Amino acid sequence: MNTVDLIAKKRDGGALSTQEIEWLIANYADGAIPDYQMAAWAMAVVLRGMDLRETVDLTLAMARSGEMLDLHGVAPVTVDKHSTGGVGDKTTLLLAPLVASLGLPVAKMSGRGLGFSGGTIDKLESIPGLRTDVTPEEFRRSVRDIGLVIASQTIDLAPADKRLYALRDLTATVESIPLIAASVMSKKLAAGADCIVLDVKYGAGAFMRTLEQAHLLARTMVDIGQCAGRRIAAVLSSMEQPLGYAVGNALEVREAVAALRGAGPSDLVELCMQLGTQLLLLTRNLERSPTKATLDADEARHMLEHTRLSGAAWHMFRQMVTNQGGDLAALDAIADDADSSAFALLRAPVVIGLYAPQDGYVASIQPRAFGLALSDLGGGRKRKDDAIDPAVGFILVAKVGDAVAAGDPLLYIHAASESDATHVAPHLIAAYTFTDQPPDTPSLVSEVITVEA
Amino acid sequence: MNTVDLIAKKRDGGALSTQEIEWLIANYADGAIPDYQMAAWAMAVVLRGMDLRETVDLTLAMARSGEMLDLHGVAPVTVDKHSTGGVGDKTTLLLAPLVASLGLPVAKMSGRGLGFSGGTIDKLESIPGLRTDVTPEEFRRSVRDIGLVIASQTIDLAPADKRLYALRDLTATVESIPLIAASVMSKKLAAGADCIVLDVKYGAGAFMRTLEQAHLLARTMVDIGQCAGRRIAAVLSSMEQPLGYAVGNALEVREAVAALRGAGPSDLVELCMQLGTQLLLLTRNLERSPTKATLDADEARHMLEHTRLSGAAWHMFRQMVTNQGGDLAALDAIADDADSSAFALLRAPVVIGLYAPQDGYVASIQPRAFGLALSDLGGGRKRKDDAIDPAVGFILVAKVGDAVAAGDPLLYIHAASESDATHVAPHLIAAYTFTDQPPDTPSLVSEVITVEA
Repeated sequence: MNTVDLIAKKRDGGALSTQEIEWLIANYADGAIPDYQMAAWAMAVVLRGMDLRETVDLTLAMARSGEMLDLHGVAPVTVDKHSTGGVGDKTTLLLAPLVASLGLPVAKMSGRGLGFSGGTIDKLESIPGLRTDVTPEEFRRSVRDIGLVIASQTIDLAPADKRLYALRDLTATVESIPLIAASVMSKKLAAGADCIVLDVKYGAGAFMRTLEQAHLLARTMVDIGQCAGRRIAAVLSSMEQPLGYAVGNALEVREAVAALRGAGPSDLVELCMQLGTQLLLLTRNLERSPTKATLDADEARHMLEHTRLSGAAWHMFRQMVTNQGGDLAALDAIADDADSSAFALLRAPVVIGLYAPQDGYVASIQPRAFGLALSDLGGGRKRKDDAIDPAVGFILVAKVGDAVAAGDPLLYIHAASESDATHVAPHLIAAYTFTDQPPDTPSLVSEVITVEA
Repeated sequence: MNTVDLIAKKRDGGALSTQEIEWLIANYADGAIPDYQMAAWAMAVVLRGMDLRETVDLTLAMARSGEMLDLHGVAPVTVDKHSTGGVGDKTTLLLAPLVASLGLPVAKMSGRGLGFSGGTIDKLESIPGLRTDVTPEEFRRSVRDIGLVIASQTIDLAPADKRLYALRDLTATVESIPLIAASVMSKKLAAGADCIVLDVKYGAGAFMRTLEQAHLLARTMVDIGQCAGRRIAAVLSSMEQPLGYAVGNALEVREAVAALRGAGPSDLVELCMQLGTQLLLLTRNLERSPTKATLDADEARHMLEHTRLSGAAWHMFRQMVTNQGGDLAALDAIADDADSSAFALLRAPVVIGLYAPQDGYVASIQPRAFGLALSDLGGGRKRKDDAIDPAVGFILVAKVGDAVAAGDPLLYIHAASESDATHVAPHLIAAYTFTDQPPDTPSLVSEVITVEA
């Protein structure tokens, strides 16, 4: 086989065979194929596409380039969740303890934020003492003993994907549904969960700008999961405005803790109910699963609501924090803070309000502006090795559909300095539009794609 | 400026600005942009194209990445010729001395053969002693003293093109009209000729398979030349069968020498007449040009025929051979051999005939089969550093349109061994098709593209 011939085949719109894709990835992973050839192939894929069979082959080849975790030795069934990324997305912090507290072990590896999109690991690390760089042994032990672990990718899963993703980032070849789907799913398959729920976001604050694109990505990932023998579902959720009211690492933990304690924003809670319901339904009729075979969606939602309101999910989260070295006293202080309407603990040195310039209704809030402003404040990353300030961020007061009078607060900026806050303020004000009439509020979840086992 | 943004712009079908292209090539040439980014950009160009302004900008940026020869110090006017490559194409060996003998200095840098296509430098080097790796100083002195030099690229013209071409070869990004045009023209512009004629070949034995493709390439190169202030014309010539009767380095020199001495195959001679006519017409009304301002095509052709039949062109060729260290006695022996119908000198150890399998007319001769068989015999290169055997090759007896009887000779294979000849024979027989009725013979030259100065 010859690399140039394989590139040319894709360039001319052909489909590579299973054997050709395995050969390409194996040789790229071990350094025999140089980056420049892989970059040309990747651009050809971006512009010519890949069919499902090729995409599944690529996913499996990348997954198998490293260790394939098998957690059946430590838990009868494990579940996992993935979000395609958005602004204010603290879903994992709520969803993972919810389902874990219902007896479904969650073994999750998460990423850090980059660009406008935040990352669960950054958020978790704003809890004093909490470690996410657990060893593979600690990871397994946590699944066995607690049934919940959220770790950064200390286990080198899908190293071929890691190398290819870094290359794509430098060669403008990120924007491809098959390549994105294969990248996500190679890591999910290698991470070993039996059931996977995907939160595929669309809209102005998501990587997929349109519902059509998001649908295509979700369908592709679900098909890959199914072809690889996993149970998988996808929920398509709107990211036309930040999720919840908090944007910023510590502020988002505070909001998630409030939700775990029975309060919290309705959009965040609703999304977790939908994702959790899908996960619970996936675990029906699965060998050794604790979920009863006749479970339906209404019952699943009721179980999730109950574990949230009873304190069981909050207890599970506390167990995870303790297990990963977090400071429980600090966590309880966050919880007390979350119960109050002020910000006793989790505030940056400067808090500045921005106010409505006119009477009316909030018609839209451009979420990307918040993600980028968070980076400008030092709370997000422009480059992979940037350090971040967990305290900075935003608390929204008015969201889409809310009525405001001129001079009402729209949001509060939490910043390290007044000049930082002043610098980002105009971008945030510009992120809002207003109307005289109440606007249509878009539905949070547009579609659920699931495959019956 | 940011490389990823420029790649993304081209990926999405945008046109890069002049400044962006200059920045890209300057940074690639000095190593600041790595090969993998350039490969992704090149694949995006292959699949998205470039407009003429971008193509001109790329050509000039690559030309200016190294020395821009200016030969006005050694000759009032210089002319150059380029062929896009074919099988049996010894045009330069005839055309260059023809026009040089008419007082138009030819300063030509040529390449070596690769794949199915031969190269002028390989052909010339089959003349004992002849050196093509002349120094820049020798190159200039030859133009001044003799008015004719054919050198390999010892002067490092357009180094950015050299680097990009090597990368394209390894990344399946060769097949792009704008990239091919920019590559050819960057070297031509850097080589400094005032007037350039392009022989753009189309058909089964050319890089451009169709007349449409060839037209587009020719038009693009002519437009580039014009935008860069050169006088330029293109002749679109058919490469549906090998040009002339000889294929192979020494055998082609023998055929060119025959043509220089007033004999030679009619298609080769006709093509040189057309190319030479265009060159002569381009030099009208050019400052310090020896060509009279009122010259027309008929007069130009007459001048070319006269210099060929009078021996003046042959004398010019002998001067060039002497000047570049070639053995004149050996050349004269070649000339004597070319005057005879046998092959007294220029024959490989084994000569084997292949014979017509049926009565009829030769309907087609697939030229690529000859190019590839020449490589198999050791007379061409599969890789850039392959050594070649100048003696091997083919002498065609029957060409398209010729009537043959079963058992008549179709061609003779000149090979180093009987097993070599036996190995290639079936591929050559398979390259012929026959019909009962006389076939239409395609016209040699389909179109001339020229720009009035």
